[in-house]
Amino acid sequence: MKLAIVFGGSSYEHEISIVSAITMKKVLKKSELIYIFVSSDRKFYLIDTEKINAKLFSSGDYKKAKQLTLKSGGFFMDGMFGSKAVDFDVALNLIHGRDGEDGKIASLMEFYGIPFISPRLEASALSYNKLYTKFLAESLGVKTVAYEYLSKNDERKISMDFPVIIKPVRLGSSIGVSIVRDASELDYALDVAFEFDSDVIVEPFIEGVKEYNQAGTYTDGWELSIVEEPQKEVFLDFEKKYMDFSRDSKVLAADITDAMKAKIQESFKKIYDPLFKGSIIRCDFFVVNGEVLLNEINPIPGSMANYLFEDFEAMLQRLSSNLPKEQDIAVNYDYIHSIQSAKGKA
Amino acid sequence: MKLAIVFGGSSYEHEISIVSAITMKKVLKKSELIYIFVSSDRKFYLIDTEKINAKLFSSGDYKKAKQLTLKSGGFFMDGMFGSKAVDFDVALNLIHGRDGEDGKIASLMEFYGIPFISPRLEASALSYNKLYTKFLAESLGVKTVAYEYLSKNDERKISMDFPVIIKPVRLGSSIGVSIVRDASELDYALDVAFEFDSDVIVEPFIEGVKEYNQAGTYTDGWELSIVEEPQKEVFLDFEKKYMDFSRDSKVLAADITDAMKAKIQESFKKIYDPLFKGSIIRCDFFVVNGEVLLNEINPIPGSMANYLFEDFEAMLQRLSSNLPKEQDIAVNYDYIHSIQSAKGKA
Repeated sequence: MKLAIVFGGSSYEHEISIVSAITMKKVLKKSELIYIFVSSDRKFYLIDTEKINAKLFSSGDYKKAKQLTLKSGGFFMDGMFGSKAVDFDVALNLIHGRDGEDGKIASLMEFYGIPFISPRLEASALSYNKLYTKFLAESLGVKTVAYEYLSKNDERKISMDFPVIIKPVRLGSSIGVSIVRDASELDYALDVAFEFDSDVIVEPFIEGVKEYNQAGTYTDGWELSIVEEPQKEVFLDFEKKYMDFSRDSKVLAADITDAMKAKIQESFKKIYDPLFKGSIIRCDFFVVNGEVLLNEINPIPGSMANYLFEDFEAMLQRLSSNLPKEQDIAVNYDYIHSIQSAKGKA
Repeated sequence: MKLAIVFGGSSYEHEISIVSAITMKKVLKKSELIYIFVSSDRKFYLIDTEKINAKLFSSGDYKKAKQLTLKSGGFFMDGMFGSKAVDFDVALNLIHGRDGEDGKIASLMEFYGIPFISPRLEASALSYNKLYTKFLAESLGVKTVAYEYLSKNDERKISMDFPVIIKPVRLGSSIGVSIVRDASELDYALDVAFEFDSDVIVEPFIEGVKEYNQAGTYTDGWELSIVEEPQKEVFLDFEKKYMDFSRDSKVLAADITDAMKAKIQESFKKIYDPLFKGSIIRCDFFVVNGEVLLNEINPIPGSMANYLFEDFEAMLQRLSSNLPKEQDIAVNYDYIHSIQSAKGKA
């Protein structure tokens, strides 16, 4: 399999996308990897797979790499004898945060007819926004944590009891997230969150809540990962999460009952099918009083949550052969023709 | 104002987008118009403004026009002396249906940093899908018509009373829409709708319901159109709607009370602000027992609903000067640097 890894992007998580991308080299040993870097000013560069390392990007040396142009059917390289498409079977969208998770890369791939692994446009738009994720989950019968919603210009008043957790609606990786233990801390936490986003959600902060992660995809059938109980600090800060994006070694399955596992997996499937077809996602659940609540959807999880799967590479290959197809629309000009006939112009 | 009109697209409404685009020439007399056609196979062509007419497209003659490539900062034309950007101030997304209304064009424009008039990605994804429109309206306190939701593989059973109206969730312009008067007609109507989409919504069909259209935008302040009571057949079929897309003459305001007008405008503002900033949309409302219900959002209305505004061209100009800006994200490599320091590699 020739796999093009698309990474970087104009995102607060630009750096960790680079880490995720480099991790793929350790994980995908049988595939031919093609690295396509999206710079922060949204230019495409073809990065030499042999030479890829973090410093290439932090030093700016990537700018010496060959620039690519996205056109119908692929990424093209200009050369002496015209334009030539970069050869690969499927693209893997590995841009965390904006561009990758908000639906832009999915839009570009779909518009230009490039086979790709990623949540599609609608799935991206809904899961990138924590408020819309709530709407989605509720409509599918999956419970979520209680919440309140605040916009930048709203009165800064919440009605739930402290402690609460404040999250910008559109970011991942704990950026701009704060725990607020009493009313005196609220203003500062909102200032921080509104630095990053125009909207926030407020949820009760549940000390020591049981958290379980379930990753999965649908290829020629369901492929669900082990359920992981993430080791965590009070909550994962950016640096800790960053390290998480380079994970490539297996973890142990959480010690939970079969009944609980079944509940978690049922919730995962409700969220995934059919909206997320074509992608590998990780859903993070809380369990409160025996009830499974969706905490968040990670539409492009760190290092694709490879460490949760038995044989990640084989699964990726099966997914590549089972990607959803865009509906064919046959454009015709029947009405224009009929109007022209009526006008005697046809 | 140099305005690039982007039209066509891989959409069931490809043809009516052409009609809308040509209509703009009659409406926008003071602006310099640049026509960028998106063919059904999603290539970009620069169409001569002097020569534009419907037959150019139905005959396939557009293929002789100059092809363009979308790159960072604009649409580029290859020439003898390298690549040159097409010169314009702002692009107007006038693609109806898929590509234009689903968020793809918005994604492309935002990704490549082109100033554009259109609903942005999130607004598009939510309004293109009639089910998500319901979620959105409910969350904003705007009432909608009761509905049931059916996916292709669901049991074909509905619990509301006949007559009902069946609508594919993702299409505009009445395509695939049927009125079902009793249970015997249900199967056929669903077959028709599922031809076009994997999901449908079912709503009660209310004979003779009062319908009112409100268009508007936010420039340096609110700019709301007159409220129109559309003249209609049982419901607008495709051909009738098609004619509607070429409208350029003013219509009369609906004969409603000030109180009703205020209710309609309040609902419009709730939907529009802030999600739809940067766009001109039309919301279609039903009034049932004095209550205003959102029927649908037209994110790219036919001929931009120009005929509902006093001075459409001046408004477009004000909107061009008041487009929402994408949030700046300063990408840095702090974590990569700090890890490299820790490893002694920096």
